Amino acid sequence: MPGFRDLLPAEAEVLREAQESLLAEMRRWGYRHVITPLVESMDVLDLGLCYAGPVVSTDEARFHHRRETYQVGAELIGASGAVADAEVIALAARCMEATGIRRYQIDVGHAEFFHGIMDAVQLPEDVKGGVRAALAARDFVTLESLLEGTPLKSAEHELLLRFPALRGGPEILEAAGGLVRNRRSETALSELGRVRELLIAHGIGDVVILDLGAIRDFDYYTGVTFEGYGPDFGRPVAQGGRYDGLLARFGRPAPATGFVVQLDLVSEMLARAPRPPALPRLDAALAWTGAGLGTALRLGSTLRLFGMRAVVDTETRSQTEAKTWWRAVGATNLVHCRGEGDVAWSSDGQRTRNLPPEQVAARLAGGGE
Amino acid sequence: MPGFRDLLPAEAEVLREAQESLLAEMRRWGYRHVITPLVESMDVLDLGLCYAGPVVSTDEARFHHRRETYQVGAELIGASGAVADAEVIALAARCMEATGIRRYQIDVGHAEFFHGIMDAVQLPEDVKGGVRAALAARDFVTLESLLEGTPLKSAEHELLLRFPALRGGPEILEAAGGLVRNRRSETALSELGRVRELLIAHGIGDVVILDLGAIRDFDYYTGVTFEGYGPDFGRPVAQGGRYDGLLARFGRPAPATGFVVQLDLVSEMLARAPRPPALPRLDAALAWTGAGLGTALRLGSTLRLFGMRAVVDTETRSQTEAKTWWRAVGATNLVHCRGEGDVAWSSDGQRTRNLPPEQVAARLAGGGE
Repeated sequence: MPGFRDLLPAEAEVLREAQESLLAEMRRWGYRHVITPLVESMDVLDLGLCYAGPVVSTDEARFHHRRETYQVGAELIGASGAVADAEVIALAARCMEATGIRRYQIDVGHAEFFHGIMDAVQLPEDVKGGVRAALAARDFVTLESLLEGTPLKSAEHELLLRFPALRGGPEILEAAGGLVRNRRSETALSELGRVRELLIAHGIGDVVILDLGAIRDFDYYTGVTFEGYGPDFGRPVAQGGRYDGLLARFGRPAPATGFVVQLDLVSEMLARAPRPPALPRLDAALAWTGAGLGTALRLGSTLRLFGMRAVVDTETRSQTEAKTWWRAVGATNLVHCRGEGDVAWSSDGQRTRNLPPEQVAARLAGGGE
Repeated sequence: MPGFRDLLPAEAEVLREAQESLLAEMRRWGYRHVITPLVESMDVLDLGLCYAGPVVSTDEARFHHRRETYQVGAELIGASGAVADAEVIALAARCMEATGIRRYQIDVGHAEFFHGIMDAVQLPEDVKGGVRAALAARDFVTLESLLEGTPLKSAEHELLLRFPALRGGPEILEAAGGLVRNRRSETALSELGRVRELLIAHGIGDVVILDLGAIRDFDYYTGVTFEGYGPDFGRPVAQGGRYDGLLARFGRPAPATGFVVQLDLVSEMLARAPRPPALPRLDAALAWTGAGLGTALRLGSTLRLFGMRAVVDTETRSQTEAKTWWRAVGATNLVHCRGEGDVAWSSDGQRTRNLPPEQVAARLAGGGE
């Protein structure tokens, strides 16, 4: 018979624990939860609301092509500027930590830096797409051969060739500032510098990498963008940025910045970690023979009142059978109830003892043994 | 600009708090979480699993006809018998308590009691449907007129007329036992008696009403059934029972008993209660003027490390403006940061004091004032 004590529930529990920790962190930042099932989270705006403010949306139920994507998102609506940008990046970082990811990094870029460059260099229309694709792929060979056929000035040529490599610490801002000569890119650099300072004040300066050469979904993003990576640098675990133009498409223009965390990626990452997260064990497995069932049920209620996890068997078992069941269930303690007041208590690595049920309850509530 | 600090997030938070309390209670009973988005929860069986056991499924994302239904379900698969039936009913009761419902009752019935009677009385085919509908609606007038035209013996006639009224305490089992003369109904009565005894051992005897006259979805349920009602007795908040035939339809026959809790009904009920649940407040609203932003960000990080909820303003404000913002945000404390070490702390009902930021952090972490 199929059932659910194996891999699937364990994965689901890792994911749920990660989600709960993440939502708790978001609440500590003053974000509140909005439920937006089966619709784009933006549709919730149609409900007509009253104040600007930060929100959290969980999006637990999207399966695409049989691939689970399980996201939690947060957005800060109504606030423009570097303070809001930095808040959302710092929140994303703390959320990654909250899920249990120990080593991570956040790449921070800016959509306007790229747009400014593309405006300034005025590439011929027929190579624009190819150059953009080569830049996005950081494919220098293709990039160089595309640029060779264009009438670019040498400074512009050099700027585009160096663009993909503009990645690193604060020195990158200066290097980039020496290359660009247009207002959009310069404003982007100064905003990024301010965001970086604020991220240091937020206490996450050491995980931030500035990445001016990343090309993201820049038709969507209008300002600072970021991606958070766990220790294995595959797909980003968190992604976000500023999208001041988006809400206008829903008839409600407003500045907005936000991100999503790919919780399914997080739980994959945690499961592959050298020390996968320990799932909370059952505290007690309560087995019984005929006359002991009532005792088992009462003991179960008592232990749960103390906040412990206790499972009562659904069928009668001898003490030997009960020990097999105990191992299968994976609880810390076995209590075998044989009648009113007749209870045998076994604990990991301890000999079995006969005790009154209330004493077993008291000992387990006191931390067990 | 629309935003999310108003009614919708409050409702969503009530619902989420209720859900978290409920899931925590399920875990205390040894139930584990299975994620079953966008599919019937039974489909998860197709994944091929190894052990029988209890599961929890949340079904957060079903909107029907623009009416939100937000369910959490639990099922105990692979166990037949009264012990499993009683466990699931007791769990449903404790889950209702966990969500914050103070007064509730659980109606317990049995599908086989009704099936046994319908077998035994052998109604003419043309009145069967009408009789069943009249019984379900507890419509005595229609019932009587339908039965008058049938060749029923007087004992069967009386049984059907009394059927809808078979509701109450344990005396109902005896009354019903005196009326029925068929094995199916008798077995149902004896199972119900055993389940009632076990529910007393579970500590919820006083909220249980036996309802033999309820007609539920008996093509689905095969044994004990139940419905949990909150204080206003509208739609049931929890419903469930035994459905031993269901998993066979998925090619995996197994006994199963379970229930769902309608979380949207729960949160409606809580919102209407004489004392609606208090939402957790923000602990601190951190406002700032120019030079104080870094202090505000660091103080925010510190307070969150202590587990507090702290929101940092996204724009600069004078102390007067900050107080208006503080009221709008609804936090317990306002900390107005004007520079390194220059911080004004206001708390509900207290005068404003100037203190070093670390002392503000320590006082708030110590319970504030």
